[in-house]
Amino acid sequence: MYGFIGLGSMGLPIAMNLLKTGHRPLRVYNRTAQKAAPLLEGGAEKASTPRDAVVPGGIVFTMLSDDRAVEEVVLGDDGIAGRLGQDGIHVSMSTISPETARRLSEKHREYGSAFVSAPVFGRPEAAAAAKLWICLSGPRAAKTRVEPILRHLGQAVYDFGDDPGAACVVKLSGNFLISAAMEAMAEALVFAEKNNVDRVSLIDMLSETIFACPIYRNYGKAIAERRFEPVGFRLALGFKDVDLVLKTAIASRTPMPTVSVVHNRLMSAMAKGRGEMDWMALALGVAEDAGIENDKR
Amino acid sequence: MYGFIGLGSMGLPIAMNLLKTGHRPLRVYNRTAQKAAPLLEGGAEKASTPRDAVVPGGIVFTMLSDDRAVEEVVLGDDGIAGRLGQDGIHVSMSTISPETARRLSEKHREYGSAFVSAPVFGRPEAAAAAKLWICLSGPRAAKTRVEPILRHLGQAVYDFGDDPGAACVVKLSGNFLISAAMEAMAEALVFAEKNNVDRVSLIDMLSETIFACPIYRNYGKAIAERRFEPVGFRLALGFKDVDLVLKTAIASRTPMPTVSVVHNRLMSAMAKGRGEMDWMALALGVAEDAGIENDKR
Amino acid sequence: MYGFIGLGSMGLPIAMNLLKTGHRPLRVYNRTAQKAAPLLEGGAEKASTPRDAVVPGGIVFTMLSDDRAVEEVVLGDDGIAGRLGQDGIHVSMSTISPETARRLSEKHREYGSAFVSAPVFGRPEAAAAAKLWICLSGPRAAKTRVEPILRHLGQAVYDFGDDPGAACVVKLSGNFLISAAMEAMAEALVFAEKNNVDRVSLIDMLSETIFACPIYRNYGKAIAERRFEPVGFRLALGFKDVDLVLKTAIASRTPMPTVSVVHNRLMSAMAKGRGEMDWMALALGVAEDAGIENDKR
Amino acid sequence: MYGFIGLGSMGLPIAMNLLKTGHRPLRVYNRTAQKAAPLLEGGAEKASTPRDAVVPGGIVFTMLSDDRAVEEVVLGDDGIAGRLGQDGIHVSMSTISPETARRLSEKHREYGSAFVSAPVFGRPEAAAAAKLWICLSGPRAAKTRVEPILRHLGQAVYDFGDDPGAACVVKLSGNFLISAAMEAMAEALVFAEKNNVDRVSLIDMLSETIFACPIYRNYGKAIAERRFEPVGFRLALGFKDVDLVLKTAIASRTPMPTVSVVHNRLMSAMAKGRGEMDWMALALGVAEDAGIENDKR
Repeated sequence: MYGFIGLGSMGLPIAMNLLKTGHRPLRVYNRTAQKAAPLLEGGAEKASTPRDAVVPGGIVFTMLSDDRAVEEVVLGDDGIAGRLGQDGIHVSMSTISPETARRLSEKHREYGSAFVSAPVFGRPEAAAAAKLWICLSGPRAAKTRVEPILRHLGQAVYDFGDDPGAACVVKLSGNFLISAAMEAMAEALVFAEKNNVDRVSLIDMLSETIFACPIYRNYGKAIAERRFEPVGFRLALGFKDVDLVLKTAIASRTPMPTVSVVHNRLMSAMAKGRGEMDWMALALGVAEDAGIENDKR
Repeated sequence: MYGFIGLGSMGLPIAMNLLKTGHRPLRVYNRTAQKAAPLLEGGAEKASTPRDAVVPGGIVFTMLSDDRAVEEVVLGDDGIAGRLGQDGIHVSMSTISPETARRLSEKHREYGSAFVSAPVFGRPEAAAAAKLWICLSGPRAAKTRVEPILRHLGQAVYDFGDDPGAACVVKLSGNFLISAAMEAMAEALVFAEKNNVDRVSLIDMLSETIFACPIYRNYGKAIAERRFEPVGFRLALGFKDVDLVLKTAIASRTPMPTVSVVHNRLMSAMAKGRGEMDWMALALGVAEDAGIENDKR
Repeated sequence: MYGFIGLGSMGLPIAMNLLKTGHRPLRVYNRTAQKAAPLLEGGAEKASTPRDAVVPGGIVFTMLSDDRAVEEVVLGDDGIAGRLGQDGIHVSMSTISPETARRLSEKHREYGSAFVSAPVFGRPEAAAAAKLWICLSGPRAAKTRVEPILRHLGQAVYDFGDDPGAACVVKLSGNFLISAAMEAMAEALVFAEKNNVDRVSLIDMLSETIFACPIYRNYGKAIAERRFEPVGFRLALGFKDVDLVLKTAIASRTPMPTVSVVHNRLMSAMAKGRGEMDWMALALGVAEDAGIENDKR
Repeated sequence: MYGFIGLGSMGLPIAMNLLKTGHRPLRVYNRTAQKAAPLLEGGAEKASTPRDAVVPGGIVFTMLSDDRAVEEVVLGDDGIAGRLGQDGIHVSMSTISPETARRLSEKHREYGSAFVSAPVFGRPEAAAAAKLWICLSGPRAAKTRVEPILRHLGQAVYDFGDDPGAACVVKLSGNFLISAAMEAMAEALVFAEKNNVDRVSLIDMLSETIFACPIYRNYGKAIAERRFEPVGFRLALGFKDVDLVLKTAIASRTPMPTVSVVHNRLMSAMAKGRGEMDWMALALGVAEDAGIENDKR
């Protein structure tokens, strides 16, 4: 009845929550199969291909790294398109472009199945604790069936209408705002440093007062302390997301100069070989531009 | 014993709180004298010049519009320098450059008096409710005398050390981060609009989840609704503050590309005659660049 | 023996020069067939499809609007791939991405034919007068055969080696530098205007002295006079080119902040409906940002 | 009859040309006096203070490093104001802000003397060869007297009207355009490098064709070769000039995003300790951002 494809640091805990909350049988697939072990112990069934994870008329979730991976899983040789069949639903939880979401939605429609976008905000711990925030969009009937399930996976579900691309736009907007906040904090903290103000005191104050929210508190503190481990979200993935924002902005003719700043910053970090660091490490470039030598390159 | 110079929308409620909490005698001065009326009714004494507001050895507060106004009040013909005398303290609550703060501190020191920076975060309502957040820096002895008084004016006081410029750097950093967040939200909201996502739904979600703090909630909502009245903080003043950030960044050789984006945006709004609007109106320029016609110019 | 596909404002005069300099038989194709009339009168043969313009073992030139058009002509149903055969050469004169050039080169190689990049600098008048500057790159043997022909079409041919993408990189670099010069001039001219200096006097002086070259003289003068007609190069095409620069920069992880500025500027002009104006009209946005009302929107 | 103040790498050859073309007596002043030696040998008279270089009713030239130096020479204790007297003329050849030019003009007017702006384009060799390009503005009568003299110092004089600030605006515009061209070339050259195109071949082609002018040829070549010695124009001075552009732009509410890019770039170079290199070394930062390690830091 249920399938789950993509068992990375986000996919695995989400699939586990599906299992725990009784969504069975659950067929699971991952390219490197051993990741599925904890799920199989819990009673999930092992699928040998993406297609094999799908039961006609069932609901299959994907949590994959990028547009190309999702397209491959849907349209590739062992893809799920066609297999889902009448009344089947594909719930896409990855951060992908609205354009890809719309295109895949069309493909599914040709086979009588439905595509629902459900990208999430939250790190792996939040996924494990079922504390994700979930953006939702797509055809109404499918959403009605999917939403109660999603409520088991997160603390809130926000519906953005029928356009399967809409939830992707929201997710991209959110990730852009996070990256913009990190860049601005990195600039403010170097500004403070060059003007002899203690970085940690500055961010402590601001994140207790006008910016008392997790992004400023957690990211700001880590940037102030130049502490980029453990890696919560890889810079290479953050760059991919901001790149999707830029390309979606271009397609819709939306000049976004802050996106340009952050995109150039992340691209520079990639060029400097920082793709495997946490994406907060964009702050290193801000310091370097100001002539500050960083220990932690 | 106490003096207060500058009775604008922030200065007046602060002075009133001083009076209410028993800081008397309080001598008050404003360029346009009638603003002092509510204070005089409450028992304050009217000063005819800035100098006249000062009692030797006392504490005088200033809340003025910009660096020049503070310099004039300190160093002008009827200025307070020299009058404060041994043990007198000047508490500067305006948003001014750290450079000006340091220069005025030097001047006061020549006369044996002390200069303390105490710029604040919060709008007029917060000032009236004694809910300001106060940044503090300057010579230790003077701060020890001033801090208990400041606790009557705000909900928290944050000490940034001996450098009289330090609290100014913190205040400028905070205002820069607010402006950067507004610009980023304005971009994200136009991005959403051009991609057919409802602006208010987007900001509602984000400001309930990853950005659950007042700046994102209040400013984001207003920007999403293109509602720039009533005017909480004039754009011309916001431009002045970001201009101080830029100039302080230049003096300390700190490249801050996000400052450049916001500074250009606010400068454009000034050039378009929007100085008297709320500074959230910088969002109009973001929409115009994307080809969106705005009703509320 | 020869084929020419794409008879727009650049392709037509180039094809005409081929004919005049004895490169016959010349088979010509254009989507809207009537454009071919002057060539047919001159002795060219009409092709009914791109494929039909190709003689196996011959040389076919393409001058088309964008990557997609070239890909379609090569790989589409009536495309030339396969038809060119052993020893056939495809000379691509359009401005396309190096990535597309490399991919098409691969495709041709599979069939035993060669792909040579030969994008050009120069406007239609230069094409007609055989005064183009031609960038060349691709496999050596093919270039040896093609270069003497190209010398009939332009005043100079510059060889950038074996990589079929190299000449595209050069062409994109040149167009980026032109756009950056236009933006910078537009900014300098508004700066002059707002500081009460005559725009035309300013550009006259600079383009007679330190910037005595055609781009500054011609474009600068037109921007100073806000004279954007007749249209030499459509803004929509200029945006397409700078967009290719940006995307090629991204693919190679090269932060280029000036590209970001120009790209945002051209994107804004597109959003404002200026795609059919000359691309110098990007200057209108510079003036608008500075609060200057333009007559010629 | 004539005076010359400021005998640096530009001032000395200019003063020498004055002497050679019979402008005597010529009284010369420099802060470090030994610089005057070649002039004294040639018949100039040594002045012991700026004021001492002035003969009432005469013409005095200044070629100094920045606004502050010119202000000091005019208004300082040994300054020339007041000394020039009725009909005296101050010809300011330094690159200074239009605002300073206007203020000094006012000061001179109070004493009955005139202030003429005459900043120049050209490096020391051009000054020695009397090949400078000279921008001129100020009161008509004074210009009539000064212009024939300036024609002995340069190959052309361009008059920008009565406003003493106008010639400064032109000079700043020119220096901004040079810096913008350098930044754009640096970006294009790194773009080429990262896409496997030879940098020197690229700039050779472009500077022989669409950009056949000295700035692109000379600066472009040097940037392509990463050859920043000998130092023609110190980066610290270039930063000072672009900083004047930015501040003049701010005062006139002119958003100039390309200025922001170049200003941040030069500021970063200053922060990295490159102030004594040639200002073409801004190109190092472009390469570093793209992950290219530079030998020549």
